[in-house]
Amino acid sequence: MSSSYYSQEVHGPFEKFDLGNFELESGEQLHGLKIAYSTFGNLAPDRSNAILFPSWYSGTSKILEQAYLGAGRALDPEKYFIILANQIGNGLSSSPDHAPGPFQGPRFPRISIADDVRAQQELISKKFGIESLALVLGGSMGAQQTYEWAVRFPDQVKRIAPIAGTARATPHNKFLVQTFIDAITSDPAFEEGWYREGAVHRGLRRHARLFAAFGFTTDLFNTAAWREIGFTSADDFVTGFVENHFLPQDPNNLILLLQKWQSGDAAKITGGDLVAALARIKAQTFVIAIGEDLFFPLKDIAAEQKLIPNSVLKRVSSIWGHLALFGIDAGYNASIDQHLKELLAA
Amino acid sequence: MSSSYYSQEVHGPFEKFDLGNFELESGEQLHGLKIAYSTFGNLAPDRSNAILFPSWYSGTSKILEQAYLGAGRALDPEKYFIILANQIGNGLSSSPDHAPGPFQGPRFPRISIADDVRAQQELISKKFGIESLALVLGGSMGAQQTYEWAVRFPDQVKRIAPIAGTARATPHNKFLVQTFIDAITSDPAFEEGWYREGAVHRGLRRHARLFAAFGFTTDLFNTAAWREIGFTSADDFVTGFVENHFLPQDPNNLILLLQKWQSGDAAKITGGDLVAALARIKAQTFVIAIGEDLFFPLKDIAAEQKLIPNSVLKRVSSIWGHLALFGIDAGYNASIDQHLKELLAA
Repeated sequence: MSSSYYSQEVHGPFEKFDLGNFELESGEQLHGLKIAYSTFGNLAPDRSNAILFPSWYSGTSKILEQAYLGAGRALDPEKYFIILANQIGNGLSSSPDHAPGPFQGPRFPRISIADDVRAQQELISKKFGIESLALVLGGSMGAQQTYEWAVRFPDQVKRIAPIAGTARATPHNKFLVQTFIDAITSDPAFEEGWYREGAVHRGLRRHARLFAAFGFTTDLFNTAAWREIGFTSADDFVTGFVENHFLPQDPNNLILLLQKWQSGDAAKITGGDLVAALARIKAQTFVIAIGEDLFFPLKDIAAEQKLIPNSVLKRVSSIWGHLALFGIDAGYNASIDQHLKELLAA
Repeated sequence: MSSSYYSQEVHGPFEKFDLGNFELESGEQLHGLKIAYSTFGNLAPDRSNAILFPSWYSGTSKILEQAYLGAGRALDPEKYFIILANQIGNGLSSSPDHAPGPFQGPRFPRISIADDVRAQQELISKKFGIESLALVLGGSMGAQQTYEWAVRFPDQVKRIAPIAGTARATPHNKFLVQTFIDAITSDPAFEEGWYREGAVHRGLRRHARLFAAFGFTTDLFNTAAWREIGFTSADDFVTGFVENHFLPQDPNNLILLLQKWQSGDAAKITGGDLVAALARIKAQTFVIAIGEDLFFPLKDIAAEQKLIPNSVLKRVSSIWGHLALFGIDAGYNASIDQHLKELLAA
């Protein structure tokens, strides 16, 4: 399953940037790190029009392209050179499911958000010669990477738009994510990560259902708003949409991403001082929160925004909750485009 | 474990009312139904001072007594005759864990909220000769029973105070509760309900963690408010408080209760017409919602309240979220007492 899912046919076209052996924040080494990415549009001669958009949990560059890019939209390839970067562990970039030698599966080293950002920085500078990004944006785990970018490389980012995510995972968020991990690893077929392909589907299905219970709003269920996209019941929707999304994915990949999500903390660079970390940000910042989001509540996002010098909080709304990120809700998409256009024009 | 947990030593003193063979709403029969209950105070000669308070999910009469009763409080045994009724399936009333003959465990019949209410009505009329209750109140599944009382026996209830619950389980609520059920039944040790005592503890622990992720507020985790009750970390708190609460309980009992919760619908009596059902209520009604509740969101509770003729919506607030019901939060307790005193004085 996973081998055909993480393919050019499903998620391409994408290219890979080879970083060789890569020293991780943990001190461990990742043997032969490759970052998969897609680009759209043309880099201006002065290299001033580059936008970086890293992927979120369980997503790839493909969904970012489908949900956020297009002529006339904020992220318009006619105007910008847009780099969609796949997270380490998402199945396209180096990941447990296809790591070489003995480093596959549970032997793949733990990765941090900072590892991704450092690798992306090499990609944009070494591959494209970009010294400054017009915009870094991302949703959820993409927001974690966005914050890390602005804190770690404050002089290389002109604007940031973290959407529906936090600079530091909150205690509740870590706890919630652990229930997702436990749903997968508690499947007896998981066998400490040495499962047969496809065997962990019960765990993945339970994980998908927890993801759905929190990821959408109660109103989505209570008003059966999934009818808009062709489903007939809560079970039909959750199975056909959410289980369907996760079933072809590799359990070890997902767990790697979930652990990275839990450990997300842009203040590691300042010894844990979040106030000092966020004060480092020089980018013009639109912090975008989804008012109904149960993964990343508005309150938590707003608390961080107040610590960022040149920032504004933008609240959007969707009955799809956190998972409005997928681009299912035209109202959400329009609001995001409006905010991004305003930010890019600034 | 369960045998010593569901005991007079832990939850008593309680008495049992024997209803004999009891015909259920499903058409099935419960062989030898016994309702466990505790009473406090004295029944007035005119029997006008009786209050009924049914139990919630995974609770017994003991926690109701500890959290809500006392001299000077709204539920003052000096003034009222208070009957705390244990739900069918809670381990004190007839339940899968101690059902006679071959009807134990998974062979125990499915129970509905209406079955409990009909049994409680027999208890108060046949045992105590009470024809009218001054107040019926309850939290969560206790609110479900409270609504069922007021809809089914409108002339026998003067006042009701459903707290943090709905008359009809919402689609999201049903979906969420199913994730709790799945957390238990997916434990390989569950063996379709024919487990060895204590064997399903991993499933119960996962269930407890899901319950905690939704049952409390994100702020409780993020501000480490559990320090107030002596815990040091999220794990310490969830293990020491929530897992500790569920571990001694019987998995089949909990599943019976969860399925009853899911099927809760006070409109069965009007053929599914919720508007007609709630219009039947004659009791003076204080609908009490916890603003931060993720199990029973304020919005869902308020939508039902609008359909109840003589009703007021009272919003209380607690960082403990739904599980403020346990009486941990002095501010919540004071608000509840104030509302109940006002209602009882009306």
